[in-house]
Order: sequence, then C-alpha cells, then structure tokens
Amino acid sequence: MRLSELARASGVSIPSIKFYLRGGLLPAGEALSKTQADYNQAHIDRLRLIRALREVGQLPIATIASILAALDDPSVSVVELMGIAQAAVARPLAVVSPAGRIAARTLLDDLGWTVAEGSPIVDSLGSVLQVLMEQGRPVDANSLYPWAKAAEDVAAAEVASIPADAPRAVAADAIAVGTVLYGELLTQLRLAAQESASLERFGAGRARGEHEVAHR
Amino acid sequence: MRLSELARASGVSIPSIKFYLRGGLLPAGEALSKTQADYNQAHIDRLRLIRALREVGQLPIATIASILAALDDPSVSVVELMGIAQAAVARPLAVVSPAGRIAARTLLDDLGWTVAEGSPIVDSLGSVLQVLMEQGRPVDANSLYPWAKAAEDVAAAEVASIPADAPRAVAADAIAVGTVLYGELLTQLRLAAQESASLERFGAGRARGEHEVAHR
Repeated sequence: MRLSELARASGVSIPSIKFYLRGGLLPAGEALSKTQADYNQAHIDRLRLIRALREVGQLPIATIASILAALDDPSVSVVELMGIAQAAVARPLAVVSPAGRIAARTLLDDLGWTVAEGSPIVDSLGSVLQVLMEQGRPVDANSLYPWAKAAEDVAAAEVASIPADAPRAVAADAIAVGTVLYGELLTQLRLAAQESASLERFGAGRARGEHEVAHR
Repeated sequence: MRLSELARASGVSIPSIKFYLRGGLLPAGEALSKTQADYNQAHIDRLRLIRALREVGQLPIATIASILAALDDPSVSVVELMGIAQAAVARPLAVVSPAGRIAARTLLDDLGWTVAEGSPIVDSLGSVLQVLMEQGRPVDANSLYPWAKAAEDVAAAEVASIPADAPRAVAADAIAVGTVLYGELLTQLRLAAQESASLERFGAGRARGEHEVAHR
C-alpha cells in the first residue's frame, strides 16, 4: 500500500510516519520509484505499537526507539527486553535521596523480591518512597502490604502469561506492549475501583459538577 | 520564619515559592514589613504537598491549583475531593473512540463497579482499552481479571483507611496525597515484582548493561 493508505490504516498522520521513517523507528517501505514506496501489514503493526507506546505510555521518542531497537535485535533475550521495557516505564523523579534509595532496598528485601543492584527500579521506587516519607507516611513492608500484594499478584499473572517456549517475536511483542499498557490499565482500574468503593462507603451524594479539573 | 528558611525547610526554591505565592497555591505569609513576611509550619506542609503532586504525580500547575482549592474549601465534601483528585490523575489520552468508551462501560458493568455516567474515569479507562483492542488484546472482564482484582483489592484498602468520622482536614489531606502517590507507588511496585518474577521464571542471566534506555 502507499503512504496515504498506511496513514489511514494505522491512524498515524503522514508527517508523523515520515518522522518515524527518518528516525529509523519504522523500516522503509519497498521502493517502487524514486518518490513512491510500498508498505505492508508489518508497517501498520509497527505504527500501532509506536502509537500505543506514545499515547498510553507517554514515552519520549528516544525511549520508544530504544524499545523498538531491542525488539528487532534477535540477540536481545526476552528477559533482557523485559528489563528494557521496565526501565522505560520506571522513570525516576528528578531527585532520589540516599534515604529514598535505602528505603527502596529495605522494602524489596523485606518483601523477599529479587531486584538487581543496578536496576533503575530501585531509584524510581525510592523516589516515591522518599516523597511518602516527607508526607509522614510509613514505608515499611507491613504498612505497604496491600499495594505490594496487588503488585505481586498482577506481576505473577503477567510473567506466567509469557509462554517460555514461544517464538521470540511473539514473546517480545507481548512484553513491549504488556509492560507499558497493562501498567496504565492497572492505574485506571484502581481509580475506577476507588470511585466504586468510595460511593459504597460514603454514599452516592456525589456532585458530578465538582469533577472538573483544569488540565493544560 | 523568613522566605529563605522556608525554601530550605521545604526543599522548594525561592523563585518557585514566589511563583506559588503569586498563583495563590500558597497562602501569603504574615507581613512583617513591606518586603518581609513570616511563614510557618503550614507553609512548609503545603509546599511539600505541592512538590509531591508535582514530582510524583507530574501534574500540571493548574491541576494542582484545583486540588488545593478544593482542599481549602470546607464546602467540598471528602467524597467530592476524592473525585477531584481522581479526575486529576485520570488523564484521558488524546482521542477516545466510541468503541473505547463502550468497552469501558461494559467492563465496569461486568465487574459490578459503580462509576457515575459523567466520570472522567470512563474516558481514561476507555482510551487504554481502545489501544489494547488495537493491539489485538481481549478487554473483557474475564481476560482482565488479574488487573481488576488487584485494583479492587488496593482500592478497598485505600477507601477503608479513610476514617468516616475523621476531621475533614485530615481525611482531605489523606485523599489528596493518597490518590496520587499510592497510584505511583503501585506502578513502581508492579515493575519491581515483575523483575523479581521474571528472574525467577527465566533465570538470573540478565545482563544489567542492557538496561540503559534513552530518556529525554
């Protein structure tokens, strides 16, 4: 198919497609002439993946490029790819204090979770714990048990769903999409469940008009 | 205390404090002279809250201003405040298709969760479901059970932890911090649990050097 059809089929604009082609995020089509190229289903799939990572994950282009490069490199194992996708989502906040980092390590040890020494997750988790501590909230494993338990439950289901003997391409795709999209899904489902639980607990006298919040 | 001490104690820079004062996010200090004002613990607490919402929630200033205004308004009930904080976090993606919105309503109904018709959560959830569908993923309640169950478990714990008879200020503060910070905590814990579960399942032969991902 031509560029215009590719744009229609993928829901990505022509200027964006050209940008992804130039940046190497999208492989070139088969050249038909000096100015025309032919694209196929693989191009549509790749554009949908870019769009998903961009819209849902709100990941910067450079991060998406790293994920895609790992996806396309058969020497990168499935476990390594998971690490790369996780590192993309684990955005540590501006400042992680030593106290935050120590709190993260202590929490992980107390939960019995194995997270490698250099993992970016220690810093990103530490940055959240640090803010919780500043707010006077406890950050020990006991106090955080409901969240740790929920995280452990979904992670177990997610990791178990990757067939150990699947072709690399299938597993890799599942991981790239899964790490980013199901994280956002969990975030949104938590909000929905909160609304439902709070209506049950505090009654339905909630004025909808109060919900408007300025965004920019 | 003076402005410089307030900056030190809160970890917020003097230009940022002046910006928050001008924008009404931080109440003025008690005037000591034409150019000097006195600040107290309440100012430190408010600045830490702004910093938490900004750094962890990555919320725009206008959104933070809405949350703070609701927090300071005694006529806004605790349940309403929860809705406002949720709306701030429930950022719908650029485009929500009718199909995405229908998928969200169907899922919520099948889960038996009560989410009001006009709630922003329907759109933000719908925008994620829509991308999952585009990726060929199932979005029915059965397929999404592990995430829904985890979300329900944390939400139940979170809502139960708000004492029904607490003074409004205490409950309000808990909600504003909780909705934003514990959402991010859950996100980070899921990544840590994933890393731990995947190391267990696929072995520890994971190269740390592979983890570097470009951020910008």
